[in-house]
Amino acid sequence: MRVLGVDPGLTRCGVGVVEGVPGRPCTLVAYYVIYTDPDDELPLRLLHLDRSLTDLVAEHRPQSVAVERVFAQHNVRTVMGTAQASGVAVLAGARAGLPVQTYTPSEVKAAVTGSGQADKAQVTSMVTRLLGLDAPPKPADAADALALAICHIWRGGTRARLAAAEAAARRGAPPRRGHAVRRGGAR
Amino acid sequence: MRVLGVDPGLTRCGVGVVEGVPGRPCTLVAYYVIYTDPDDELPLRLLHLDRSLTDLVAEHRPQSVAVERVFAQHNVRTVMGTAQASGVAVLAGARAGLPVQTYTPSEVKAAVTGSGQADKAQVTSMVTRLLGLDAPPKPADAADALALAICHIWRGGTRARLAAAEAAARRGAPPRRGHAVRRGGAR
Repeated sequence: MRVLGVDPGLTRCGVGVVEGVPGRPCTLVAYYVIYTDPDDELPLRLLHLDRSLTDLVAEHRPQSVAVERVFAQHNVRTVMGTAQASGVAVLAGARAGLPVQTYTPSEVKAAVTGSGQADKAQVTSMVTRLLGLDAPPKPADAADALALAICHIWRGGTRARLAAAEAAARRGAPPRRGHAVRRGGAR
Repeated sequence: MRVLGVDPGLTRCGVGVVEGVPGRPCTLVAYYVIYTDPDDELPLRLLHLDRSLTDLVAEHRPQSVAVERVFAQHNVRTVMGTAQASGVAVLAGARAGLPVQTYTPSEVKAAVTGSGQADKAQVTSMVTRLLGLDAPPKPADAADALALAICHIWRGGTRARLAAAEAAARRGAPPRRGHAVRRGGAR
């Protein structure tokens, strides 16, 4: 299974592509950091992020996408940008017709280090070891994205298959009542 | 000038299309509410929102898009979904090559009622009056999106032209250093 993991951020967005099967060591395919300029306007930044992620999905053809879940408790100054970036990342996977799974930071840490409270250095160290790398990923921002991809492969096997089956069933199904565009009544 | 306003939300996303020039009464073109099912998974909901907004932009061919800015202080339970929806809305405008402007709720309220502290009923009442409607917009979720579009027409004339000129200049310019995808070093 090939998974593309995304650690969403507006200024720095980590992307990691990993191959493997549940319970076995994984193989690194590639990793990236997408940068956008904080001095630029939001639309331009989201557009660059969208295009870059869409290109990477097209290039690496993962079977599924894993995105870190964002919480409101995070740094308030940057959390809105991070949430918008995560929306763009989830959408990039969904637009490519792929199952997209989100994981909390604790789930990711627990999957790769055994502890949901592990610090960044511990996660980076385990990612380096689990992928059999000679040195920690550089830029370091990619380590969390690689951890997400590993987490998804190890934990997500079943969940991903279920989600894919459900998504496929839905694509063939008539529009659901819950989704609608209602046009206004006036004129 | 034709403007498409978006009041972003994941469960209910208001869209209003208005025509006008600064300082003159505006004309309603259409309004909508895009609904997604809270029981559905996030990727499916963002995908529906993206497709609906993209379709509405293509149908109405606005000159610019106005999106309400989301703040972290809002309802913590729903703010992440709202922020993700706003990212998708900004992106839908940017992908169509349109200038996208964001406004705070206070800016919108001040533009249509004269007070940044106006309540929802006051905004709805002024939108109804300013667009010369016989009755308030139904569903009511569209009123804020119409107010955003009016705000943009009245306040945004100059800003929108500047943003459009800048966006056009950038499209012709070489990639900026600030935007990059950096590939990882290993392997």
